[in-house]
Amino acid sequence: MAARELEPQERLDWLRLSRSESVGPVTFYALLRRFGSAAAALDALPRLSRPVRPMTRADAAAELAAIERLGGRMLCWGEPAYPSILAALDDAPPALTVLGRAEMLLAPMVAVVGARNASANGRRLARDLASGLGEAGIVVVSGMARGIDAAAHLGALETGSVAVVAGGADIVYPEENRGLYDALARDGAIVAELPLGTEPQARHFPRRNRIISGLALGVAVVEAAAKSGSLITARYALEQGREVFAVPGSPLDPRCRGTNDLLRSGATLTETADDIITQLGPLLRGHPPPQPPAARQPPLPLLRPAPRAAMPVAAAPESEEAGLELIVEKLSPTPVAVDELVRQCQLSAAAVATLLLELELAGRIERHPGNLVSLR
Amino acid sequence: MAARELEPQERLDWLRLSRSESVGPVTFYALLRRFGSAAAALDALPRLSRPVRPMTRADAAAELAAIERLGGRMLCWGEPAYPSILAALDDAPPALTVLGRAEMLLAPMVAVVGARNASANGRRLARDLASGLGEAGIVVVSGMARGIDAAAHLGALETGSVAVVAGGADIVYPEENRGLYDALARDGAIVAELPLGTEPQARHFPRRNRIISGLALGVAVVEAAAKSGSLITARYALEQGREVFAVPGSPLDPRCRGTNDLLRSGATLTETADDIITQLGPLLRGHPPPQPPAARQPPLPLLRPAPRAAMPVAAAPESEEAGLELIVEKLSPTPVAVDELVRQCQLSAAAVATLLLELELAGRIERHPGNLVSLR
Repeated sequence: MAARELEPQERLDWLRLSRSESVGPVTFYALLRRFGSAAAALDALPRLSRPVRPMTRADAAAELAAIERLGGRMLCWGEPAYPSILAALDDAPPALTVLGRAEMLLAPMVAVVGARNASANGRRLARDLASGLGEAGIVVVSGMARGIDAAAHLGALETGSVAVVAGGADIVYPEENRGLYDALARDGAIVAELPLGTEPQARHFPRRNRIISGLALGVAVVEAAAKSGSLITARYALEQGREVFAVPGSPLDPRCRGTNDLLRSGATLTETADDIITQLGPLLRGHPPPQPPAARQPPLPLLRPAPRAAMPVAAAPESEEAGLELIVEKLSPTPVAVDELVRQCQLSAAAVATLLLELELAGRIERHPGNLVSLR
Repeated sequence: MAARELEPQERLDWLRLSRSESVGPVTFYALLRRFGSAAAALDALPRLSRPVRPMTRADAAAELAAIERLGGRMLCWGEPAYPSILAALDDAPPALTVLGRAEMLLAPMVAVVGARNASANGRRLARDLASGLGEAGIVVVSGMARGIDAAAHLGALETGSVAVVAGGADIVYPEENRGLYDALARDGAIVAELPLGTEPQARHFPRRNRIISGLALGVAVVEAAAKSGSLITARYALEQGREVFAVPGSPLDPRCRGTNDLLRSGATLTETADDIITQLGPLLRGHPPPQPPAARQPPLPLLRPAPRAAMPVAAAPESEEAGLELIVEKLSPTPVAVDELVRQCQLSAAAVATLLLELELAGRIERHPGNLVSLR
């Protein structure tokens, strides 16, 4: 299956699978690999030893209709409009709701994030950084929070600004940013992983932060206290292989504790947008300009499941129960590579994958990026 | 000759040679190596092809007496009280005038330097850094300038503070620091390379800065504009193999431009004294405690001239004139290693050394650290 827009029916299935209970992004892709298509996976879910209830067809259709009414789009992983830099992550969102100008997601992006209780100087720096990046043709992505995030969006509003929100794309949060929200929905873009109408909750923010860093070539942090949310974004950035930039500040200002710590850990010291542009230079030159769908290839072979015949023929478990027990025995709360598990269990990779899916959907194991699993 | 205090007559000769016209530190050590002692070098100076006038015996005796009247000491290179970390430099001052507690120069030292027009926050940071270093048993060295320097001295006044001044040790500059000067002369130490009574001039400051960094295991810079004197000290520190520390600051504050640039170049980000102490850890542990003179060895074999008989017998120039011409021919404004020059000229090392001294004292060549010379 080449990279192309999904057919309406495929899109509906894709959305249903991604919104089914217990199905996070990593499980979603595992199901897709295992069953070959979203439709096949949906068929299989109710027949698992612990059945999983998929999102209903009606609910999925209603969500797609509501997005359309808002003038938005749903981008599915692997579609031409889905940014390839984000698609390369193990836990890339299977589907993104986008309001506004979705084509901005195909430009090179840099994240500018930071403290909500930012100083006036910090806000000015964020705005200057963002407008400097914009002048260089870089789209600025941030989280639409108060303080640094809002200033960054404002600075890049004319050149390109994308907000990734923690709740639904139609939920304005915080309320004081309604004006900014309206401007972004018109001149920029608003991106959400969760369904329309979802009120943002504390646990949603770290998941959202991984999308901010995942969309960006680099993450610039302007003012961040120790142990603040912006540092979570910076940690994701490191894990995702993105560049991390930090603006230095006085040791007497607690709002600079986090950024100075980042510098200590090797972040690039950043005073102006040029510092970022210089450091990203090779990546910016290498960034592919938006291409027509036909020319793009999916960045992962995800939509081309391995032909079954090519799988090694290895021992199958005597029964599913026996297989599940065998695997649970080998697992612990410490994540282990699935490949290692396959070797240890002396089962085929396909059999282990099926058993892991069962355990995952039963909530007994947890998936980790890098094809690792652990016992819950 | 082992490391020991010089005899009164030797000290007088040492001072006379170091204060003779055209004799800078590198030339001083070259003369010492060439002639074996300060007395022998003084004898030779008037007989050179372009004779050099040594400091008179009376002037030297008067300077030593004046130092004694102020309760000070003159420390000569290689004496037990002369700090070995400074002695290791190619251009270590042959003689230092010290007022106050000269024994402080044998403790581990860190320099804290920075902008004269410092902010209140910068002064507070300098003072906190200095007192934190002092609590860890580190003596703080600085330049007694307004702003950061003065704040650093104040912070370490109770634990150990050394000022290296650009003029004579008896000259208070700037006048507003008279109170600080008096306190340092009593509870700390004041160090000068130039003779008593010398009014500091612009050209003296860089030479002074090399002593500040040369005395220290590391140099911490608190607030420094781009291209400021503190950055010269930091550059000396790098050339001398010292650690460089810089306090970060807002990109909007021009007083932090220099420190942020240092961080960009790899200086250790410093918010508290602990950052410095942690980084210097191994060096601090390795720092020898002050030892009785008998146990100390001179850090360079300078006071033990190589025996003449051991020198390779090589061609001598036909005449001194011919030799000088031969050498000048090989030299350019680009510094070249003396060893290379010896090879190229096919003369003995001793003959080349003598000819170079002649050229040096005639002001035709310039010495550079690392045994390099260039044509002026």
